[in-house]
Amino acid sequence: MNRIDVQTDPSRYRHWRLAFDGPVADLIMDVDPAGGLFLGYELKLNSYDLAVDIELADAVQRLRFEHPEVRAVVIRSGKDNVFCAGANIRMLAASSHGHKVNFCKFTNETRLAIEDASAHSGQTYLCAVNGPAAGGGYELAMATEHILLVDDRRSSVALPETPLLAVLPGTGGLTRLTDKRRVRRDLADAFCSTEEGVRGRRAVDWRLVDEIVPPSAWSRSVADRAQALAASSDRPADAAGISLAPLERRVSDAGVDYPHVRVRIDRVARRADLTVLGPRDLPADLAAIHAAGSSFWPLAVARELDDALLHLRFNEPTAGLLVLHTEGDSDAVIAADALLEAHRGNWLVREIRLYLKRVLKRLDMTARSLIALIEPGSCFAGTLAELSFAADRTLMFAGALGGDNRAPAALRLSAMNFGAYPMGNGLSRLATRFLGEPDAVERARARVGEALDSAAAEALGLVTATFDEIDWDDEVRLLLEERASFSPDALTAMEANLRAAGPETMETKIFGRLTAWQNWVFQRPNAVGEHGALKRYGSGVQPRYDPERT
Amino acid sequence: MNRIDVQTDPSRYRHWRLAFDGPVADLIMDVDPAGGLFLGYELKLNSYDLAVDIELADAVQRLRFEHPEVRAVVIRSGKDNVFCAGANIRMLAASSHGHKVNFCKFTNETRLAIEDASAHSGQTYLCAVNGPAAGGGYELAMATEHILLVDDRRSSVALPETPLLAVLPGTGGLTRLTDKRRVRRDLADAFCSTEEGVRGRRAVDWRLVDEIVPPSAWSRSVADRAQALAASSDRPADAAGISLAPLERRVSDAGVDYPHVRVRIDRVARRADLTVLGPRDLPADLAAIHAAGSSFWPLAVARELDDALLHLRFNEPTAGLLVLHTEGDSDAVIAADALLEAHRGNWLVREIRLYLKRVLKRLDMTARSLIALIEPGSCFAGTLAELSFAADRTLMFAGALGGDNRAPAALRLSAMNFGAYPMGNGLSRLATRFLGEPDAVERARARVGEALDSAAAEALGLVTATFDEIDWDDEVRLLLEERASFSPDALTAMEANLRAAGPETMETKIFGRLTAWQNWVFQRPNAVGEHGALKRYGSGVQPRYDPERT
Repeated sequence: MNRIDVQTDPSRYRHWRLAFDGPVADLIMDVDPAGGLFLGYELKLNSYDLAVDIELADAVQRLRFEHPEVRAVVIRSGKDNVFCAGANIRMLAASSHGHKVNFCKFTNETRLAIEDASAHSGQTYLCAVNGPAAGGGYELAMATEHILLVDDRRSSVALPETPLLAVLPGTGGLTRLTDKRRVRRDLADAFCSTEEGVRGRRAVDWRLVDEIVPPSAWSRSVADRAQALAASSDRPADAAGISLAPLERRVSDAGVDYPHVRVRIDRVARRADLTVLGPRDLPADLAAIHAAGSSFWPLAVARELDDALLHLRFNEPTAGLLVLHTEGDSDAVIAADALLEAHRGNWLVREIRLYLKRVLKRLDMTARSLIALIEPGSCFAGTLAELSFAADRTLMFAGALGGDNRAPAALRLSAMNFGAYPMGNGLSRLATRFLGEPDAVERARARVGEALDSAAAEALGLVTATFDEIDWDDEVRLLLEERASFSPDALTAMEANLRAAGPETMETKIFGRLTAWQNWVFQRPNAVGEHGALKRYGSGVQPRYDPERT
Repeated sequence: MNRIDVQTDPSRYRHWRLAFDGPVADLIMDVDPAGGLFLGYELKLNSYDLAVDIELADAVQRLRFEHPEVRAVVIRSGKDNVFCAGANIRMLAASSHGHKVNFCKFTNETRLAIEDASAHSGQTYLCAVNGPAAGGGYELAMATEHILLVDDRRSSVALPETPLLAVLPGTGGLTRLTDKRRVRRDLADAFCSTEEGVRGRRAVDWRLVDEIVPPSAWSRSVADRAQALAASSDRPADAAGISLAPLERRVSDAGVDYPHVRVRIDRVARRADLTVLGPRDLPADLAAIHAAGSSFWPLAVARELDDALLHLRFNEPTAGLLVLHTEGDSDAVIAADALLEAHRGNWLVREIRLYLKRVLKRLDMTARSLIALIEPGSCFAGTLAELSFAADRTLMFAGALGGDNRAPAALRLSAMNFGAYPMGNGLSRLATRFLGEPDAVERARARVGEALDSAAAEALGLVTATFDEIDWDDEVRLLLEERASFSPDALTAMEANLRAAGPETMETKIFGRLTAWQNWVFQRPNAVGEHGALKRYGSGVQPRYDPERT
C-alpha cells in the first residue's frame, strides 16, 4: 500500500473548490469519481473516501489561517443532482477493519474542526443542501450550525446506514441527531430506519434541518443567511492571512523528520519514538509573529505533530507504543507560551492556540499506548508538558546523569496548562487528572514557572513514577516490553475508557459510545461477512442476517 | 440449552449466605465450584458465572423488601484464601458472544442495584476484602460505598483482564475507577496493567480502597464501619418486611403467563408480544398495601415484567422485536399511581417506586426493538405510560374500533411521569424525549390525568404516529416487517445510541462506552480467536496477537 499523506493544498484539490466573496466563502464539494485513494471503486454521486476528507480538512484549516476576512462558510455541492451520497460503500466494503476505524476517526475529527471554527474562530459554517444528502453527506451538514434544504421533490436528508448497509452512521450522525439537533428519539428512530430519508416541511418539523426554501428563493436565502451569520463574527476585516507553507518533511524507512518533530520507528519493538524540539528563536512581538507566519514555533510544531500523528495512524499500524520525548530549552518554551498568552486576543494567536488544542485532542484520540519520558535535556514545559499529561504514563528521570552536561530533567508548568487546551470532555488535562483531588490543581498552579525536579513533580502528582540513573534504563525497557506484550485491542479499549474520565460531551460521545458501537458492528458478520450487507451492497442479492440479538 | 431462570430464594442458594445482626447484614460469597450454570467448568476461588450472579441479584432485592431493619450490608468472602477471583474464565471462553454480552449486562445491572440501595434505600453496602479480589471480584467491591482491605501480604485488589485475558473488566470496572473512585489516570493505567494487583498502603494512596486494616483489628474495624454507615440510615427500625412470594408463572413454548404480564413468542416473525395487565383491585390504604405485600399490583407488575425481560434476553435471543401492550382500566392504573405518590415517604412504597425505576431501566437496556402499541382497551397511563416512552416507536390507534365496546385508545399521564422513574442519564423519559423542546414537558404536565386521544397525544409529541381503523393493521404490520428485515446488530447499536440522548452518567458510560468497547473486544481474534488470550488461558501456551492497532 502506498503511504497515505494528509498534506495537500488548494492547487492540488480534486474534490473541492473554494470561492470567496468578501466575508463569505463557498466550500464546494465536487468529487472526482476517479480520484479515490485506492483502486477498485468510483466516487460516484459525491460519495467520499479518505482522499476527499483529507482535502476537506485542509480547506477548513486554510480558511482559518489564510482567510481572516472569512466569517461564514457555506458548504454546498458542485453537482446538480446530488448534495453528497456519504462515504463510498465499495471503499468501506474493501477496507480492512483498521482502515475503516481510522477513516471514521479522521472524518469525525474534521467535522469537529468545523464545529470548532463555528464556536471559537468567528467562522460559522452553514450548509446549503441542494439534492439528496445521505449518510455521511447529511452528517457533514449536521456539522454546520445551520442547514438549509431546498423544498423540491428530490432534495432530502437521510441516514440510511441501518436499513441499507447494516452499519451505523459513523461520523457522529446519531449523536448529533440526539445531542446537537435534539431530535425526538422516536422520530430519530423513524428517520434512521428510512432509506429514502425526509424532505420538505417534515424535515423542519423533525428538527433535521433549520429551514426549507423554495427553489425560486434559494440563492438569495443562502446568501442572506450567510451574511447574517457573518455579521456576528469578531474576525478582523482588514487583517492579512498567513500562508500555511508546505511542510518540510523527510520520510524514510526509519521514520519522519520535520524541523521541530522527529519520529523514529522500531518495527521489531513495535515502537515509535516521537521527539518535539523546543524553539530555537522566537519573534519579539505580535508583528513579528505575523511575519513569521507558519514558521512561528508553536504553529510549526502543531502542524508537524499533527502530520506525524496521522502518519503513524495510517501508515504504521503496528507501532503500538508511542514514546513521547521533548528536547531543548524549557525557558524558550515558556517564552513561547508567554507570547501565546500575551496576544491571545489577536486572531492569529487565537487560531494557533485553537489548533494546538485540536492537535492535543488528536493525540488523546490516537489508539496507541502513550508513554512520556522526561529526561535530562528535555523541555516538558507549558504547552509541551501537555504531551506528558496526555500520556497514559509518564516516567521521569531523577537527578543528574553522570558525565552529561545537559540540564537535569525538569517539568515546568505555564498558564497554558490550566484551560487553554481543554480535552474533549471540556476540562483541562490537569483537571481531568485530578478529578479525585481538585486541590491538586491549585497546588500545581502555585508552582507555575518553576523547574520542578522529579521529587517535586512526583509529590505534586504530575508524573507516574521517577527512577534514578541506576534504574532508569531497565525500568523504561521493562515498561515498554510489558506493554508491547499485551493485546493491542485490549489496550485500545482500555485506553479509550481510562482517558475518558469525568464528563462526557457530544464530542466524547461520538468517539466513545458511537465509535465503539460502530467498531463493534464493523466486525459483525451481518455487516462484513460474506452474506453481510456491506459485502452484498449493489450486488442485487439481499444480505442474509443471523437473527440473534445480543 | 436449558432455560435460564433468574428466580430463586435463599433456601436454594448454593453460592451466597446471609447473616443478620440487627441493622447489619453480612452477604457472604462462598461459591460452590460445582454449582455453575453450564457444564465444563468449575467455579474455583470464588469465581462466578451467571448462576452466582442470579443469587446475588436475588439477595440484594430481598434485603431491601424483606429486611427493612437492615441498614448496612457487608459483602465478604466465605473462603479463607480468596475474596473473589472474578468471572470464570473457562465459562467466558466457552460462551457465545451473545451470552457474554448478556451476562455482563446483567452483572452490571446487579451492581448498579447495589449502588441504588446505598444511594436511595438507606441500605449502604460496604466490602470487606480479605484475600485477593481480582477482576469482577474487585468490581463487586467497587460497587459498594466503602472498601476495607486487610493489610497483610496476600490481600490485594486487581483488574488483570488486559494483561491476562486480552479483554476489559466488563462490569463497570474501568468507569468506576475513573468516575466513582476518581483514580488518577496514569495510576489507573498502571493498576490495570498489573496482573498481581495492588495491596497495602499503596491501595489507599491510589484511591483503590478506602482503608487498610491490620489483621488483628479486622473484625472490629469492619463491624465498626458497618455500624457507622448504618447510623445515618432512615430505614424504620420497627417495621416488618414483606415476603417476596414465588412468582406465579407458566412457561410454555408459546410464551410465559404471569398474573399481570403475558408474553407471546412468534419465532417466525422473530417477535415477542408483551402485555401488561392493569390492576383489578387495589388496597385502600397504607396498611392494606403492606398486607398485600408482593401481591400489590405495582410490585407484582415490576417483578413479573423484570422476569419476563430477563427471560427474553437469555432464552429468546432471536425475538428481536418486543411489542409492548397494556390491557385494562386506566382509572385503576392512575389510582395505583396515586397510592405510590401519596405514600412515597413510606419505606415499602419507596422500595416499590425504586424497583419500578430499575425495571424500566432494564427495559431501556434491553437490546430489542421496542414498539409500543396504544390500542382500544389498553391502559397506557402513568407508570404504564413509561413503557410507551421507553419504546423506540409508539403507534396509537385513532378513533373507535367498529363493533368494539372497549374504551377508545387513550394515553394518560400522572405525576409519576415527571421524575419518579429517571433513566440512567438522570432525566425522566419525558425530559429526555423533549430535550429539544423543554416547553413540551410543561405542556404535557398541564394535561396530567386527562384521557388523551390520538390527536391530543400526537399534538403533545407523546406518540410517534397515529392511524385509524382503516390503516392500523397494515401500518403495524409494515413497521414490524420492516424492522425484522434489518440487521439485528445494526439495530442494537443504533438503539444504544438513540436511547442515550443527553447527559451521560457513570451508569450510562458503563452501558455505553465501556460495554461497547468490551463487546468489540469480545469479537476480536486477539481475545476469542484460536490463539487468543481467552482461549489459551490456563493452557500453558502464550496467546499470539495480531500487532495492528486500530
